[in-house]
Amino acid sequence: MADNDPIIDPKTKPTPPPIESPAALSGWQRRWHEIIFEADTPAGKAFDITLLVLIVISVVGVLIQSTPTYEELYQPKWGRTLDLLEWVITILFTVEYIARLACVAHPLRYVFSFYGIVDLLAILPSYLAPFVSGTQALATIRTLRLLRVFRVFKLGDHLAESRTLLKIVKQTRTKITVFLSVIMIAITVLGTIMYVIERDEPGSGFTSIPISIYWAIVTLTTVGYGDIAPVTVLGKTVAGMMMLIGYSITVVTIGIFAAVVLGAKEEKQVPSTQSCPNCLSEDHAADAKYCKRCGSLL
Amino acid sequence: MADNDPIIDPKTKPTPPPIESPAALSGWQRRWHEIIFEADTPAGKAFDITLLVLIVISVVGVLIQSTPTYEELYQPKWGRTLDLLEWVITILFTVEYIARLACVAHPLRYVFSFYGIVDLLAILPSYLAPFVSGTQALATIRTLRLLRVFRVFKLGDHLAESRTLLKIVKQTRTKITVFLSVIMIAITVLGTIMYVIERDEPGSGFTSIPISIYWAIVTLTTVGYGDIAPVTVLGKTVAGMMMLIGYSITVVTIGIFAAVVLGAKEEKQVPSTQSCPNCLSEDHAADAKYCKRCGSLL
Amino acid sequence: MADNDPIIDPKTKPTPPPIESPAALSGWQRRWHEIIFEADTPAGKAFDITLLVLIVISVVGVLIQSTPTYEELYQPKWGRTLDLLEWVITILFTVEYIARLACVAHPLRYVFSFYGIVDLLAILPSYLAPFVSGTQALATIRTLRLLRVFRVFKLGDHLAESRTLLKIVKQTRTKITVFLSVIMIAITVLGTIMYVIERDEPGSGFTSIPISIYWAIVTLTTVGYGDIAPVTVLGKTVAGMMMLIGYSITVVTIGIFAAVVLGAKEEKQVPSTQSCPNCLSEDHAADAKYCKRCGSLL
Amino acid sequence: MADNDPIIDPKTKPTPPPIESPAALSGWQRRWHEIIFEADTPAGKAFDITLLVLIVISVVGVLIQSTPTYEELYQPKWGRTLDLLEWVITILFTVEYIARLACVAHPLRYVFSFYGIVDLLAILPSYLAPFVSGTQALATIRTLRLLRVFRVFKLGDHLAESRTLLKIVKQTRTKITVFLSVIMIAITVLGTIMYVIERDEPGSGFTSIPISIYWAIVTLTTVGYGDIAPVTVLGKTVAGMMMLIGYSITVVTIGIFAAVVLGAKEEKQVPSTQSCPNCLSEDHAADAKYCKRCGSLL
Repeated sequence: MADNDPIIDPKTKPTPPPIESPAALSGWQRRWHEIIFEADTPAGKAFDITLLVLIVISVVGVLIQSTPTYEELYQPKWGRTLDLLEWVITILFTVEYIARLACVAHPLRYVFSFYGIVDLLAILPSYLAPFVSGTQALATIRTLRLLRVFRVFKLGDHLAESRTLLKIVKQTRTKITVFLSVIMIAITVLGTIMYVIERDEPGSGFTSIPISIYWAIVTLTTVGYGDIAPVTVLGKTVAGMMMLIGYSITVVTIGIFAAVVLGAKEEKQVPSTQSCPNCLSEDHAADAKYCKRCGSLL
Repeated sequence: MADNDPIIDPKTKPTPPPIESPAALSGWQRRWHEIIFEADTPAGKAFDITLLVLIVISVVGVLIQSTPTYEELYQPKWGRTLDLLEWVITILFTVEYIARLACVAHPLRYVFSFYGIVDLLAILPSYLAPFVSGTQALATIRTLRLLRVFRVFKLGDHLAESRTLLKIVKQTRTKITVFLSVIMIAITVLGTIMYVIERDEPGSGFTSIPISIYWAIVTLTTVGYGDIAPVTVLGKTVAGMMMLIGYSITVVTIGIFAAVVLGAKEEKQVPSTQSCPNCLSEDHAADAKYCKRCGSLL
Repeated sequence: MADNDPIIDPKTKPTPPPIESPAALSGWQRRWHEIIFEADTPAGKAFDITLLVLIVISVVGVLIQSTPTYEELYQPKWGRTLDLLEWVITILFTVEYIARLACVAHPLRYVFSFYGIVDLLAILPSYLAPFVSGTQALATIRTLRLLRVFRVFKLGDHLAESRTLLKIVKQTRTKITVFLSVIMIAITVLGTIMYVIERDEPGSGFTSIPISIYWAIVTLTTVGYGDIAPVTVLGKTVAGMMMLIGYSITVVTIGIFAAVVLGAKEEKQVPSTQSCPNCLSEDHAADAKYCKRCGSLL
Repeated sequence: MADNDPIIDPKTKPTPPPIESPAALSGWQRRWHEIIFEADTPAGKAFDITLLVLIVISVVGVLIQSTPTYEELYQPKWGRTLDLLEWVITILFTVEYIARLACVAHPLRYVFSFYGIVDLLAILPSYLAPFVSGTQALATIRTLRLLRVFRVFKLGDHLAESRTLLKIVKQTRTKITVFLSVIMIAITVLGTIMYVIERDEPGSGFTSIPISIYWAIVTLTTVGYGDIAPVTVLGKTVAGMMMLIGYSITVVTIGIFAAVVLGAKEEKQVPSTQSCPNCLSEDHAADAKYCKRCGSLL
């Protein structure tokens, strides 16, 4: 919060449109709303911290239950306790979900909002588990509860940082789209070329074009697992050239992107959109009073 | 399109020289030209979307046909259908190619243009397949049809982004050449050093200098497959130092490049140093003829 | 030192609060203090260089003693010599520790300072070794002596570089926290998704969610060991998309961060907007009281 | 050459001190000097291109001779031809070396210059080979001939780029030293920690502290071979945290470095070093005529 952000001026932050008009709420609803949806009061803060602790406990529980060590050694002894704990948390989250529904002016709008869906996904798997066969896959969906952390920290809508980021991403949307399209086409073409080169080699991992495209992604992002790697001399030559070109492109792209972000920031000092009434010329400075080309009043 | 580009001014974009002068075309040629080469009319848009869908279907077909799963399980049942589909698309692309030839003023100039060659490569493999032995290698060339996506999205010549990129690459051409020359010489020398160190080790992958150069590329670009890795103590020491130096160079290079791009951008916006003889105000634009504050001649 | 730092003005560096007031020290204490804690006198410089040499010898000793080659071949012959050397260095460090205690005004404050703890950790393991079973683990703690190099080079508090770095990190603290939180949640969710996809595959390394999270870290940071890698088609598809998105995010993040650092720097140099009432010149420094061109009061 | 460099002004490039004063040379020496050391005349250009071709042929020869395929299949047939070619090139390089010695004013200064040593290293291995046992290791030193490419392209002293780079590296020398020191200490401490955690594990590759340090380098530079990777749960946790921290540090460092490079560039508009004769204040702008604090003439 105390962080100074050189890109966006906190004063110009548009206030997000409120989901519900608190005026239409009765007394207890308003009080609950303050506790559940806001974090300014001590009760609201306590509520948020409790929520955070429950989320972390619940997710750590899911993580532990997925390990083979737990299943072998601790499941017989601690399984029931963990299941019980899981149910307690689920019921608490359910109560919270109902409370949220009760104290907003437009419950339906909440249900279909991003956080409404995340809140529902946080409790549904536990209730569906008894009726579905693939229980564990369902149980693991509970790690999505982590997304609720965004709500507690108001990471999603209270920090200027995310807004700045979103703004920059929005401004450079076309650039990113072009960049990704070129990358996608490049990896498909490169994957195909490597497939043609390597496929007849016995030990080669390039067994199909999709696999070769996967290899191209792994290579160009410099992850480089090594589960698939060229074995022929020609394949290694082409792959080596690919890496050098990909490396150069990465260096160039980062540099360009830094310039774009800085440009987006400096653009706030936009030129005025006024055009001269006399000579119709545009592109005047924001502080111009007279046309810089013909000298008449703007 | 709506993306604001801080580096290049869209107004200063030079209009590319047209391949054909539409004035020399008859009525139906002009109408066809509008549909096939442009995307402003509803018919032109529909044409482009159809083309895009056909390209994606065709490339997905090539991808699927290359997988072992398809060959084993689906080839007997779906093979004929896919072949038929492929022929339909090829014929459609052929018709399109002929139509393009018919409605441009200088057909030969089109044939030898970049897109003309890509368009021809998109149909040739299918026709040559029956006469050539290495059929599948030829079939996979059809993924080059993806390059046609550039045409549909006008990625290649209608977006300011690519132009900006090209401009920056052009401006920093010498820098990039020097950078690549140094990298090339460095990897050759480093590869040779590692070869001398590691070649007598039994399990070592450094079996020749070219292989060692390939390893140096894989390492310095931080891809790091691990198919070849030093096994001797000296080799590991030298490799570790190489990585640290390579890492530092990457950090430094990205920083320098970001600064170069930013510098190239700021150089354009040098404000004029003239001050108004009447009101003594400064900070006028370079193209200003009249003072923007008092309107008197500069 | 002679390095010019464009970000922080060396004049504005706050002098760190001294741990001890030298005024309260007697004559020999002051002389010792000058030698041990400072590096301006020849004796102080000699002391620092001796310390540096001892640290390096001692750490190289620990490194050599940990290798299997040493244990097999050289331990019988050189073991006693190295042990003796180790004890000599430990005693020298102990004497130094006592000397430091003796010549500071507030010994306790020194003991619990960062360097006080590092100095103690540099000698303790050797004294505790005879009484503890896991001797070698204890011995290796002696590599922490390397942290004392920071003291010799005054890397920690005498170079403007570290201060600049700390300042930037402080200014962008919130940004980094948000960035890391998003990364943490992303790798947990992505790890879970990959676990659900891959866990039933026989050869798959995705045996639990924590392991899958480890894989997500290894992949998104582009380290890419390859000890765990997706084997199913769906897993490879999801992983490939993850890499492309992670790659784009890295490029964007570096660009944003470079812009943020530059912005933080430029913000300090906002020129004053005041113009001279006499000659109407502008572009005065923010702290200017008189016009730099005609000398009249601003 | 036509490349505009926003960082260094080509006019301010200091002319490097000439190795020899051409005035002291006789007629034929001056003519030879022009051909051998310069590239402005047609003869000089032809000489440079011949040299470049010979270097590339010679290095490609070394590369080919190191491959097992050559040794098995082509050595019996082509071995003598390649050896002859190698000797022809060596003799040509020797003649060139003597010619260089003959046409410079100070032969000794040339011999001990950087290029003098590279030129000698380019011919020595071939002459020493018959008298030394480890012939092939010696032969491979001939790839160092590649360094002569720098001379042909005048990469080392005629392009502003290298000078800019050198200037930036020089200016940020202290920063890079601090950065590398911190990295060195960090990898040693982290390597030791991982060694303590992993060494008792049977299949673990962390067999000694030096190996663990090598692993830390491979991991922190994101090369990630995978030949050594943590196997214990604790090891994986620590390694995962290391990667995330290393990743963040890389992002931050690149951003900071970009700012430093740009700062170094902007510094050219240094503030004047004049101080006010009246109030002794400093930090005046370069164009200031009057003290901005007390208004007296500077």
